[in-house]
Amino acid sequence: MASVNPPRGMRDFLPADKARRERVLAVIRERYRAHGFDEIETPVLEEHDRLHAGVGGDNEKLAFNILRRGLDADAVRAAADDQALLSDLGLRYDLTVPLARFYASHRGELPSVFRSIQIAPVWRAERPQKGRYRQFVQCDIDVIGDASSRAEAELIVATLDTLDALGLDGADVRINDRRALDAMLEVFGFPADERPGVLITIDKLDKIGPDGVAAELRVRGAAAGAVDAFEAFLVRPQGGDRLPFGDAQIRAALPDGVDDAIVAHLVGVGEAVSAARGADAAGFEVPLQFDPFLVRGMGYYTGTIFEIAHPSVSYSLGGGGRYDGMIGRFLGQDVPAVGFSIGFERIVDLVTLGEADAAEAVVLVHDRDVPVAELLALKAAFVAEGSRVRLERRTKNLKGLLERATADGYTAFATVTAGAARDDVEPKPLG
Amino acid sequence: MASVNPPRGMRDFLPADKARRERVLAVIRERYRAHGFDEIETPVLEEHDRLHAGVGGDNEKLAFNILRRGLDADAVRAAADDQALLSDLGLRYDLTVPLARFYASHRGELPSVFRSIQIAPVWRAERPQKGRYRQFVQCDIDVIGDASSRAEAELIVATLDTLDALGLDGADVRINDRRALDAMLEVFGFPADERPGVLITIDKLDKIGPDGVAAELRVRGAAAGAVDAFEAFLVRPQGGDRLPFGDAQIRAALPDGVDDAIVAHLVGVGEAVSAARGADAAGFEVPLQFDPFLVRGMGYYTGTIFEIAHPSVSYSLGGGGRYDGMIGRFLGQDVPAVGFSIGFERIVDLVTLGEADAAEAVVLVHDRDVPVAELLALKAAFVAEGSRVRLERRTKNLKGLLERATADGYTAFATVTAGAARDDVEPKPLG
Repeated sequence: MASVNPPRGMRDFLPADKARRERVLAVIRERYRAHGFDEIETPVLEEHDRLHAGVGGDNEKLAFNILRRGLDADAVRAAADDQALLSDLGLRYDLTVPLARFYASHRGELPSVFRSIQIAPVWRAERPQKGRYRQFVQCDIDVIGDASSRAEAELIVATLDTLDALGLDGADVRINDRRALDAMLEVFGFPADERPGVLITIDKLDKIGPDGVAAELRVRGAAAGAVDAFEAFLVRPQGGDRLPFGDAQIRAALPDGVDDAIVAHLVGVGEAVSAARGADAAGFEVPLQFDPFLVRGMGYYTGTIFEIAHPSVSYSLGGGGRYDGMIGRFLGQDVPAVGFSIGFERIVDLVTLGEADAAEAVVLVHDRDVPVAELLALKAAFVAEGSRVRLERRTKNLKGLLERATADGYTAFATVTAGAARDDVEPKPLG
Repeated sequence: MASVNPPRGMRDFLPADKARRERVLAVIRERYRAHGFDEIETPVLEEHDRLHAGVGGDNEKLAFNILRRGLDADAVRAAADDQALLSDLGLRYDLTVPLARFYASHRGELPSVFRSIQIAPVWRAERPQKGRYRQFVQCDIDVIGDASSRAEAELIVATLDTLDALGLDGADVRINDRRALDAMLEVFGFPADERPGVLITIDKLDKIGPDGVAAELRVRGAAAGAVDAFEAFLVRPQGGDRLPFGDAQIRAALPDGVDDAIVAHLVGVGEAVSAARGADAAGFEVPLQFDPFLVRGMGYYTGTIFEIAHPSVSYSLGGGGRYDGMIGRFLGQDVPAVGFSIGFERIVDLVTLGEADAAEAVVLVHDRDVPVAELLALKAAFVAEGSRVRLERRTKNLKGLLERATADGYTAFATVTAGAARDDVEPKPLG
């Protein structure tokens, strides 16, 4: 007999867990909606060619592919050397590729600046490990059609407000710009074709430090003069951390020679976030940190990139960035776009939200001799009063039965005997 | 370039549609929960062997199968004559097989009578046609661990209450028992091995009438004497329709020789539904109709079966039944189970629910010269007041812009100029 467990790396959710997840999702939906975002939904399957068009980065390799239907044995043999013939559809590995496809399909039916919410599962055939699942929920908001810093600011403010509502206040957003990274590497003398590899190493800066980065770049065979210049920059004395977020801090953290327009865009984001969050005049309380070495893994980012840092955890609670080139791959015409994804599976374990139900939740415990019609009439009377009701036949372990009901959110119980009417039943508090 | 449409037979949902679907689902969840059911979730993928174990009926043939990962060309050629080697996982085609697997895995963590809610998509590679989709949402409630008529009664009452809350009151439940069908066919003399085929024909009674059924049975080569006896029974004068639901009505609609226990179980369901729904003493208002020829397609049903009939439509809005044998296939020990599924995709188009948001939803229309920081500060002020806010840069077609916002549920708008503070902005009603 096959296993009765869920497939490897995937999870069942029991009632208490499912209820908690839904309560957290309800808060996220409500806050994002208040900030002017609208929820959409796309099918979990997309065409194989769409998912493997090179825009999904490393995630493309992790896609679950659907076996094409109606293949006979000859067709299977013919497809042995070209597995794309075996599969016409696949499960999405993120919500960004489907969003770009959706926008290209429905642009005429959407506002000129479209602010989307997507809250839905994605699938990746990752090696299962603690905190990594093969099916998990992503919560994305995206702004499509706005090249200005208003877009980044709306995303960041909506996200911080949502984290506040979940009790995760005190989050900071680390921010950078892919163009600033590229300009910086150019200033130090890394040739254009080396830069993607250099970024992969820089992405490890938090883990291996400046020495480790320089050593790895040398092992990779990066241009020696550029590595020396970059190492000197990494270990130089810095004063920028003590400045409030803004032009002076950003310039102090970058080498000379980065385009003014890039810095101005980041400054604009900071001013708008500051205005919305009511930071003090000096700007020290803006929940933004410029991080010139923030990389973000995805290849499709073209501008601003950001990540949520929270004092309670060492890992990021989410992130995102601009991907102005991706919609064009689907639409044939470039449209600016920027998105922010919060790590739902990471935050759901940090959040403690009270039971959302205001209504009384009553367990009616009955013996076998109470007629079913009487039980259903009593239950209907409680439901009509606005209660949530569970019928339970009495067992020897009444204590265990009531403890389980308490865990499932029930707040009161009553024992029901044959002939009892609603007025005869007086629930007592549980627990 | 590949199509930008969703895959064949699957749908995108735009904001207005998505919001309407979520509002209907929220009502369904809230009502089912009030009736003591608890929501669970399982992964969308199940092991291939589970999905193809013969319990899913015809739906097994419609499953989307996942291509096994890491197959090299040799492995593909070797699998050409046994496609099960090509696929280790599949997308679920219903919520019942995953529920049975879930229950077998988690029985020790669940109440002795477990009442589940599952609201989730399923996938079937059906030939796309009007109203049939390859991804669609099912809403199932099930009672596991209760062999008594309390289980059917709780399902039926919760379902009718939910339809009432959706404005679809006036629904009736057509009810029968698979054992009564089997007993009836035995009485008429159909041999046991012919009965499954005979049921397939009887299932067409509504469409082809008694003459058509008898003719088709003869073409199928069913036992001639049995067909004659059955035809005479089908066209006999009947008086049972004018009786209230109960013992007399059921007996009048069945040939002699059907086991008393089967009739008593149905009568028990009727009494309990009647008590819960407050039907009159004569029982004429019980929203149940005994239908001795109701078949329901699935092979796994073992007892009571039922279907929702609503005066506004000719098709069924949902159905279900007892499947006491299925859990045992997973657990190795029989556990009684009965489920009721409402046809979400069918009812969502019939329901008209008002906009759920009580809060004001404001569009702030601004010119290009308003600084982004001012816009974000204004937006934050409205959000803090509990409003939902959309920022829109003014376009030549302001009327079109506001019409779209109205369609998305916005109720007010204001024009914002540079330097405006919250007190300067007075939203006007839209539409």
